[in-house]
Amino acid sequence: MYDSITIKGNIVLPTEVLFDSYLTISNGKITSISKEKQDDSEIIDATNQYILPGAIDAHVHCYSSMLEGFSNATKSAAAGGVTTIIEMPYDADKLICTQALFEEKKILLEQEAVVDVAMLATIAPKDGLYQIPLLAESGACGFKVSLFNTDSVRFPKIDEGELYEAFKEIEKTGRPVGVHAETDSIVRKFIDNYADEGENNPSAHCKSRPKVAESTAALTVMELAHYTNAKLHLYHCTFPRIFDLVDYYKSQGTNVTAETCTHYLTLCEDDMERLKAKGKINPPLRSAKDMVDLWELLRHDRIDMVTSDHAPWTIDKKQATDIFSNSSGAPGVEVLLPILYSEGVAKGRISIVQLVKVLSDNPAKHFGLGHRKGKIEVGYDADIVILDPNEKWILDETKMYSTARWSPYEGMAMQGKVKRTFVRGKEVYNGKVIGQLGDGIFINAIHGSEL
Amino acid sequence: MYDSITIKGNIVLPTEVLFDSYLTISNGKITSISKEKQDDSEIIDATNQYILPGAIDAHVHCYSSMLEGFSNATKSAAAGGVTTIIEMPYDADKLICTQALFEEKKILLEQEAVVDVAMLATIAPKDGLYQIPLLAESGACGFKVSLFNTDSVRFPKIDEGELYEAFKEIEKTGRPVGVHAETDSIVRKFIDNYADEGENNPSAHCKSRPKVAESTAALTVMELAHYTNAKLHLYHCTFPRIFDLVDYYKSQGTNVTAETCTHYLTLCEDDMERLKAKGKINPPLRSAKDMVDLWELLRHDRIDMVTSDHAPWTIDKKQATDIFSNSSGAPGVEVLLPILYSEGVAKGRISIVQLVKVLSDNPAKHFGLGHRKGKIEVGYDADIVILDPNEKWILDETKMYSTARWSPYEGMAMQGKVKRTFVRGKEVYNGKVIGQLGDGIFINAIHGSEL
Amino acid sequence: MYDSITIKGNIVLPTEVLFDSYLTISNGKITSISKEKQDDSEIIDATNQYILPGAIDAHVHCYSSMLEGFSNATKSAAAGGVTTIIEMPYDADKLICTQALFEEKKILLEQEAVVDVAMLATIAPKDGLYQIPLLAESGACGFKVSLFNTDSVRFPKIDEGELYEAFKEIEKTGRPVGVHAETDSIVRKFIDNYADEGENNPSAHCKSRPKVAESTAALTVMELAHYTNAKLHLYHCTFPRIFDLVDYYKSQGTNVTAETCTHYLTLCEDDMERLKAKGKINPPLRSAKDMVDLWELLRHDRIDMVTSDHAPWTIDKKQATDIFSNSSGAPGVEVLLPILYSEGVAKGRISIVQLVKVLSDNPAKHFGLGHRKGKIEVGYDADIVILDPNEKWILDETKMYSTARWSPYEGMAMQGKVKRTFVRGKEVYNGKVIGQLGDGIFINAIHGSEL
Amino acid sequence: MYDSITIKGNIVLPTEVLFDSYLTISNGKITSISKEKQDDSEIIDATNQYILPGAIDAHVHCYSSMLEGFSNATKSAAAGGVTTIIEMPYDADKLICTQALFEEKKILLEQEAVVDVAMLATIAPKDGLYQIPLLAESGACGFKVSLFNTDSVRFPKIDEGELYEAFKEIEKTGRPVGVHAETDSIVRKFIDNYADEGENNPSAHCKSRPKVAESTAALTVMELAHYTNAKLHLYHCTFPRIFDLVDYYKSQGTNVTAETCTHYLTLCEDDMERLKAKGKINPPLRSAKDMVDLWELLRHDRIDMVTSDHAPWTIDKKQATDIFSNSSGAPGVEVLLPILYSEGVAKGRISIVQLVKVLSDNPAKHFGLGHRKGKIEVGYDADIVILDPNEKWILDETKMYSTARWSPYEGMAMQGKVKRTFVRGKEVYNGKVIGQLGDGIFINAIHGSEL
Ligand SMILES: [Zn+2]
Ligand SMILES: [Zn+2]
Ligand SMILES: [Zn+2]
Ligand SMILES: [Zn+2]
Ligand SMILES: [Zn+2]
Ligand SMILES: [Zn+2]
Ligand SMILES: [Zn+2]
Ligand SMILES: [Zn+2]
Repeated sequence: MYDSITIKGNIVLPTEVLFDSYLTISNGKITSISKEKQDDSEIIDATNQYILPGAIDAHVHCYSSMLEGFSNATKSAAAGGVTTIIEMPYDADKLICTQALFEEKKILLEQEAVVDVAMLATIAPKDGLYQIPLLAESGACGFKVSLFNTDSVRFPKIDEGELYEAFKEIEKTGRPVGVHAETDSIVRKFIDNYADEGENNPSAHCKSRPKVAESTAALTVMELAHYTNAKLHLYHCTFPRIFDLVDYYKSQGTNVTAETCTHYLTLCEDDMERLKAKGKINPPLRSAKDMVDLWELLRHDRIDMVTSDHAPWTIDKKQATDIFSNSSGAPGVEVLLPILYSEGVAKGRISIVQLVKVLSDNPAKHFGLGHRKGKIEVGYDADIVILDPNEKWILDETKMYSTARWSPYEGMAMQGKVKRTFVRGKEVYNGKVIGQLGDGIFINAIHGSEL
Repeated sequence: MYDSITIKGNIVLPTEVLFDSYLTISNGKITSISKEKQDDSEIIDATNQYILPGAIDAHVHCYSSMLEGFSNATKSAAAGGVTTIIEMPYDADKLICTQALFEEKKILLEQEAVVDVAMLATIAPKDGLYQIPLLAESGACGFKVSLFNTDSVRFPKIDEGELYEAFKEIEKTGRPVGVHAETDSIVRKFIDNYADEGENNPSAHCKSRPKVAESTAALTVMELAHYTNAKLHLYHCTFPRIFDLVDYYKSQGTNVTAETCTHYLTLCEDDMERLKAKGKINPPLRSAKDMVDLWELLRHDRIDMVTSDHAPWTIDKKQATDIFSNSSGAPGVEVLLPILYSEGVAKGRISIVQLVKVLSDNPAKHFGLGHRKGKIEVGYDADIVILDPNEKWILDETKMYSTARWSPYEGMAMQGKVKRTFVRGKEVYNGKVIGQLGDGIFINAIHGSEL
Repeated sequence: MYDSITIKGNIVLPTEVLFDSYLTISNGKITSISKEKQDDSEIIDATNQYILPGAIDAHVHCYSSMLEGFSNATKSAAAGGVTTIIEMPYDADKLICTQALFEEKKILLEQEAVVDVAMLATIAPKDGLYQIPLLAESGACGFKVSLFNTDSVRFPKIDEGELYEAFKEIEKTGRPVGVHAETDSIVRKFIDNYADEGENNPSAHCKSRPKVAESTAALTVMELAHYTNAKLHLYHCTFPRIFDLVDYYKSQGTNVTAETCTHYLTLCEDDMERLKAKGKINPPLRSAKDMVDLWELLRHDRIDMVTSDHAPWTIDKKQATDIFSNSSGAPGVEVLLPILYSEGVAKGRISIVQLVKVLSDNPAKHFGLGHRKGKIEVGYDADIVILDPNEKWILDETKMYSTARWSPYEGMAMQGKVKRTFVRGKEVYNGKVIGQLGDGIFINAIHGSEL
Repeated sequence: MYDSITIKGNIVLPTEVLFDSYLTISNGKITSISKEKQDDSEIIDATNQYILPGAIDAHVHCYSSMLEGFSNATKSAAAGGVTTIIEMPYDADKLICTQALFEEKKILLEQEAVVDVAMLATIAPKDGLYQIPLLAESGACGFKVSLFNTDSVRFPKIDEGELYEAFKEIEKTGRPVGVHAETDSIVRKFIDNYADEGENNPSAHCKSRPKVAESTAALTVMELAHYTNAKLHLYHCTFPRIFDLVDYYKSQGTNVTAETCTHYLTLCEDDMERLKAKGKINPPLRSAKDMVDLWELLRHDRIDMVTSDHAPWTIDKKQATDIFSNSSGAPGVEVLLPILYSEGVAKGRISIVQLVKVLSDNPAKHFGLGHRKGKIEVGYDADIVILDPNEKWILDETKMYSTARWSPYEGMAMQGKVKRTFVRGKEVYNGKVIGQLGDGIFINAIHGSEL
């Protein structure tokens, strides 16, 4: 019987690939990386395959649909090479804005998760700022807020004045604050206009949320971050100008990061007619040119992370004729890594090291998980994915683990396949999900001076 | 009897000073500028004095107090070397947001003004955008709007969605849109906080309107201008960061200008205790360092205009103990040019050519008056000021023409004095105001392709 | 019998990779690229292998050693996946600075080359500028000059005054002028200092050519380009600051490109003790940090080309104890593509699309070959390389085709191997060189308005 | 009898002007600055006149013509409001490149100077670097070198290799190194071309020294400064691009300053026909547009200093028909301040504070005199100029104190006149020069850590 296991293959380190090398795992940790086999441990032969750090999907909504939950979302994650998800605080039935609710959700997590989970908290629209230090104490990896009033109860807008105060409180915790950045009054005005005129076909969704709604909101929160010194993250940025504005703030020393999502890299408004409500996502799909330009930014290291914004609506929420009557969002945690590999690395647009940076290294660092996750390094959690760069396959929505059972990427031709996934040394996927509910644990975020 | 008059002195042209030269006026226009006397016209000897183009105060509220009106405000202007004012559309009793109201005010103007007047219009908070082309047709030199809800009726906030639509309409007219940029929800939140805590001393006013309220609003409207291509003007900018942000947008090709006001260059929050409500102005006075830094920006040509934001409240509006219960603003049209000369040119901080640029040339150009006003050039309106650079005097609020009868600058030691003011060749001030009601006319703005 | 051949594999286009696709060649040209097989032509199955455009090595000295010549250098090229070389005008026995000598060398080329060849000309140090238009007429793809006096006859410095005149003449031809940029007086001074002090060990070579010698020379010629509008290329740039300076000039609109070489990406001054004179190259190897930083620049698309600076000295020129008594340079055309693939793409530092940009697309465009070479596109020359990304091998200097028979990279562990090379549709390498002398042709450069 | 004297007027401080204030002098130092008279000292009434710190002309050649010497050059200085000159080390009969020669010249200085003098040293073209610390020890305020070989003995080029070593040595002393920046080989080439073609009319001088000669040399020495950390000064920069390049280096942290001269601000190549050899100056006069643009740079604080490059050739050196046979340079120390006031301040192009910055404050700081000279501040040397801003006069070359007895500015209409000059409290000019030989002293420069 073996104490440890060793995987042989092309190991993707933070700055380069080690060919034909050996990675040894013991007690859930990476214990050696070398050109030679170190001991007599069991060998997994992954020659000519990549050994990657597990992806960290920093944007997952396990409970936007109560059917999904940690159990299904994390199975889907495991199958997609995602070894840690960062869970959003907007549950279908409640806002996770108090320590009590946060702790309760943590208990659920430890019972149901198959991969590891870090959790965001949010704040109540009024009188809730005193909970911020308590939520940090409970290990929230950050705070999520919105400038768009998705739903006054379930996903409310926080007014700018309140937000300014919130940023000051959050800054004291060292945690990042992430924002859904769309200016409510612009989107409202436009949706009303389209409603008044009865224009409710799929592409009306894109037109009703103009780019300026996204950029004005992004500017507002970056300016708040500039004044409060809070660590800011911009979720789901959809077009290049946002990243230009982010770079302007970075050049001033503002602590800001920004992500885009799989769908903005691979789908665009021209797909709306085909996808119908399956393409209804907030913010909306943009132009074909934006899609191409986002790849250029990614190639130039100007995008900090790529996430899925996994929103596992069942198909009945996506079948209204009036596009505005459908839910927004799409499932995606299971295809984040495969699509970024296939469309990015295999198609020669980005290097494998860049993929690891935006899927593992950066999300770990920015959300306080960098002390144990995000890279292949001795002493780190053995969150490992084996990916075969040569295997070709067709993306099939019926084979996915999310309860959604549909995908906007249905039928996509893929190159490169996740073969096995390990979470802290335990194999959770080997072609099918073999991890158990409870295999995943809550990851306590550690920020700044706590390190 | 003379057909024309000739003034001899140091003539301030747009890029340099002509010493001991002769400027001739005929039929209200400048007809010659030369080193030699051209004809036998009457001579005004202003040797060793400056002959300046009249100042254009782009920010005057004649009717914030109904007592003031065009008659008193323009007398005050004449006495201060201001030969054209740009009148705001926020009258104490109504918003100038329809063609009818605009035309009515024009009639009043032609009866009561002593110097020339151009007029801004505004828009109703809802359903008023169709008036924009009509107001342009009536000769509005631009549109003024606010992101701060000073008063829901008299001076309302326009929501961002509505504003985006308004910018698109205004852009079609070629007119600029000027904005009072303070984010309402931040100011509200802070005023409420101070009210709750009973902190209502003078400096609480400054604290209740943090810089971030001003910068977030400025960013929002610059972003709208970026997307709509509208010509934007930012009123009363109070600290350097705003001008940095403006330069960032200018570097992207956005059409934006920004002004500061006399008070931000000469007063600061440390003066609040002394000035009390006389120093209550929106946005508020900032730090002593900001004041010094604004001069540096002015010296580097990074501020487009300086204005007075003339708000001629009578003293009874400035005597409440609770700082928040006082009106905001201060009179200033009469001291705009003298203070900028004394504190700027005489103190060696800026050159006389720079003064003319920010007080005459730039305001004329940006507000569509550049075809006849803003510089000393043959063919231009003979709007002329004679200023003695050596005369010293003490600023005395009791001698001013505004009905306010008080000044935040009371007692200031001044160097350089306006001796005579001419509007289209007619002398309106020679130590006292000698112009008549009706001497001033409405100036029809001409923009872009209309030229 | 087949009219045409079809290769199936992963085709590397200028902006992305097409998986499992078919490339058809007919009459030396690429005739189709598609997802489906187009006709019944012979199939070469390169599934899971890359189909690349042939590399263009823009910096090859076939005649620095007369033993090498076109025949050996181009065999070496063929074996390394280089389908076009750009030949330097500094032959061991003469400067190619007249039309007569250029035409004579072209004849030799057509007899002896195995792959295609474009040729640079140079100018005589004095009184030779009238030859510039004649050399352009003969199809020189550009001009090469030096600010370092390698050898007064064979490789002379052109003085700055003469160079300024030369740039003006060259500009008229639309051809680029490439420069060996090291300031002669600085290098001379330092070599003399080391000679005086008897310090002549291998690393003395690096110290005798300080970075400032390279940067001052680069600045001088970029400034000449700025004033003359000449198209400038900087050869063999060795450290990041040079590329920063290049970007500064690019931002001003100066037409300048810059290359680095294989050795600056993989070797450094710490290797001098091991390599001895084999590491003596001008400019010299720099620090280990520079080497790492050059990869970062390459990843950010800030380096236009990578070349070999192939200098095939026989080993007897590399055996003097006094480092200064050895010849400078090393052979490299055969390993340019394999090393950039192995160290760059396979190690995850750059993407395959970036490799093609710096090895094929950019050199073709900048040197006037972009009308027929540099990318896989229908109608282009069928210069094709098949590369197996998975094959591992050890670099062995005894197996190379250059007459040098040594390599500074001896023993390097490689991933990825060139399997077959085609020049205009004719296979010239299939594991061994099978091309014949005369298979290569002279490529007439076409620049700017000639297109 | 009075211990001290007090001057009443408008005192120009480093950042603003104090009106109608009192400056008291005692024992050669400024002892008080105040709004009120402090004691019963004698009063000089300069009401409505400026009280300026004496100008520091950082670029004076007292001995390019042996007739001039310290005595005449410093009388000329006193008459022009220059209270300190910085003397060049290129005497007609010798290079001041050794401590012995430097000390000898210091003795002469103390006997003959009427105003204060700081002195530069130079280095021998070969084998002279060991003198650098000795010259610093003797109080040299900096080192001057040239990249143009004006004269192999009297004013030689230092080769780039030697210069690099010199910069390293000079850096250790904390002293600045100033450079005459023209690339010798370019100027040589062009002069030869014009000579060959017999084109030797006045404007041929301008054409023979193209801008690229100046900019390439400036770049070379800035790059040397970048690598050695030496404090660099660029003398007599003639066109805007040089200042752009300087700003690029400043933005990188390189310690570099740059001056322009009176003549580049007021004369241009179009004046050559009129001026003939009187306009022959190195580097040459440039275009009318450059002249205008330099004023813009000055206004934006982008030029560190303005100097005269006083070269007091007698008229016989300026009468050859062949322009190339004349000496280069023109006298100017006496008109530096008057011209900058008249053309700059009086014409409204710059403010009086800016004039003081470029004529007094900056030269003092950069050349190690800032501990006692360059501004009006209590404790500083009482180097004072009284200037009447209103007086008009015509520049008359026959009234000047230099032995040159001619001026390129002859007949210029001036506004603003120097009325009185004080050096360390002693009046040296009151309409005529009343200072005595020996009134001036050597000023020992103090740099960096010596302070
Ligand atoms: Zn969202
Ligand atoms: Zn989301
Ligand atoms: Zn306002
Ligand atoms: Zn106002
Ligand atoms: Zn070379
Ligand atoms: Zn070479
Ligand atoms: Zn010089
Ligand atoms: Zn000089």
